[in-house]
Amino acid sequence: MQRIAIIGLGLIGGSIGLALKGANLPDAEIAGTARTRDTLQKAKKMGAIDVGERTAADVVRGARVVIIASPILTIPRILDEIAPVLEEGTVITDCASTKGAVMRWAKEKLPDNVYFVGGHPMAGKESQGIDVAEADLFRGKPWVIVPPVDAPEEAVKSVVALAQLAGAEPVFMDAEEHDSYVAAISHLPLTVASALFSVAFGSAAWPELASLASSGFRDTTRLASSSPEMAHDIMQTNRDNIVHWIDRLMDELYRYRQAIVAGESEPLLKHFTRPQMERDNYVTTGPPRRASGEPLPAVSISDFLFGSKISSMMRKQEEIVKQMEEREKKR
Amino acid sequence: MQRIAIIGLGLIGGSIGLALKGANLPDAEIAGTARTRDTLQKAKKMGAIDVGERTAADVVRGARVVIIASPILTIPRILDEIAPVLEEGTVITDCASTKGAVMRWAKEKLPDNVYFVGGHPMAGKESQGIDVAEADLFRGKPWVIVPPVDAPEEAVKSVVALAQLAGAEPVFMDAEEHDSYVAAISHLPLTVASALFSVAFGSAAWPELASLASSGFRDTTRLASSSPEMAHDIMQTNRDNIVHWIDRLMDELYRYRQAIVAGESEPLLKHFTRPQMERDNYVTTGPPRRASGEPLPAVSISDFLFGSKISSMMRKQEEIVKQMEEREKKR
Repeated sequence: MQRIAIIGLGLIGGSIGLALKGANLPDAEIAGTARTRDTLQKAKKMGAIDVGERTAADVVRGARVVIIASPILTIPRILDEIAPVLEEGTVITDCASTKGAVMRWAKEKLPDNVYFVGGHPMAGKESQGIDVAEADLFRGKPWVIVPPVDAPEEAVKSVVALAQLAGAEPVFMDAEEHDSYVAAISHLPLTVASALFSVAFGSAAWPELASLASSGFRDTTRLASSSPEMAHDIMQTNRDNIVHWIDRLMDELYRYRQAIVAGESEPLLKHFTRPQMERDNYVTTGPPRRASGEPLPAVSISDFLFGSKISSMMRKQEEIVKQMEEREKKR
Repeated sequence: MQRIAIIGLGLIGGSIGLALKGANLPDAEIAGTARTRDTLQKAKKMGAIDVGERTAADVVRGARVVIIASPILTIPRILDEIAPVLEEGTVITDCASTKGAVMRWAKEKLPDNVYFVGGHPMAGKESQGIDVAEADLFRGKPWVIVPPVDAPEEAVKSVVALAQLAGAEPVFMDAEEHDSYVAAISHLPLTVASALFSVAFGSAAWPELASLASSGFRDTTRLASSSPEMAHDIMQTNRDNIVHWIDRLMDELYRYRQAIVAGESEPLLKHFTRPQMERDNYVTTGPPRRASGEPLPAVSISDFLFGSKISSMMRKQEEIVKQMEEREKKR
């Protein structure tokens, strides 16, 4: 029996559990831990985990793969807690919305005999928590994988297999690329949705506004219903990129404003024509090309539970190093 | 047979036709006109109209109720065209997203023996045109009704009945209220969605951004797919209100920006907590209270086709005026 540990059983962790359980991996035990006992019980009842543990240290004991799916700013503490307990060769990944800080923490806090490969499944919902978790949450969605430069291929393959088991499309990039891209298409929309809801709600006419608001207002502000804790942690760990994109949006909004004030038909029409055409194109035919030019490596499900392979590989490496050291001494 | 005329058979006009046909009004003939012959044929085939006419003048001939569902800036020309043809007592309404300009045009261009009551059904879709029209588009949605100060009760009742036949909820307000409210919850989101899509699309990294973008980006930018002509006409006829709300949003975005730069946990968390709580509250329990404090008058479906009642009423008034004038002369 090989243990796969999930730390954090909210929408993301719970959905990963359901997806893994649905994959019927042979010899695998899905173990989870959550902040509250209530969540842990629900996760077990829903079939998202086989075993519930009280602490992160307990859940990673003997695990071959560890998936951290808790709020970004809880990750350093979790890494401190699990570092002494992790087995040699364990692969650790995460689901955080920002990657630079997480990659630094992992490098700083984890021992050299385990492998951290960053992850970010690009999926979400208007609601949070285990109650809205579902096995198909990631189906067809991008799952960003951020391998450190020195990561062994097997460790990366393990996280690719996780994404594929969940039905997602693995996309490789480095932490800096990831953080600048998601600032534009995820963190900026989150900020705008919150600010937009905030000005409408803050108006003295809010009751009238609310009774008139239709699906357009609802969709544009949907991300304002995201977890405030998540939003806070994102803003704290991707500050410069988000500020850059807020500034670009404010410049653009100002250009729209000036075109509206000027009231000249042609430039005003242009402001709305190009985005409409390009968005329709994007919605109907999808993104212009893959983020990664390289084809993805073929991965078998068994690659996912490769932990034992790595640890034996590492032992071999250690043996070679020892032999070489002894040879040096003998000279 | 009483004619109901629809001018413009896009998403809104087509959906009104389908809703009216679905209501099986006794003795009613739904006649429509559109910019292209293709649209007119589709509308007939879909059962959105009984009769198709080539021009606005033709379709309003003999009509008791006229519904203008064409782009805002086409309305003055349409009013000029139909004014000489309209029968005494006809009720005219529209579906435009702004009301101040439309009410002024109607006052200026229509004869005194017909009644214009402004309307704005608050419903829309990501796509436009007759192809996506549906009878239930307005069901449960607000339908703003803007009666001029001197509108007879029967004319207003006719438009209320139209909204109710379509399953919508009539909401009364004056043109200024309407235009300032929709600037906040409809025209500002439209502008923001377009600007947001525009900055993402304008980036050199757009292919990468697009391949990472998930449902959050898609929802926040949905309104960028609105008709550019509609957006243009809205901006041209509600300029001051929209600019006011863009400025408020830019101030608010700047406050978020500064909180992100400062990086202090408590104020940053607050920026996202309040909108999240209030939006969840709004989504689950609905608007805080009705825009109109007054209960709606009970309206029967027969009120909708009241045209003959008004014209006889008007003839009576004219008679009285004539009698009084003659009495004056005799003195």
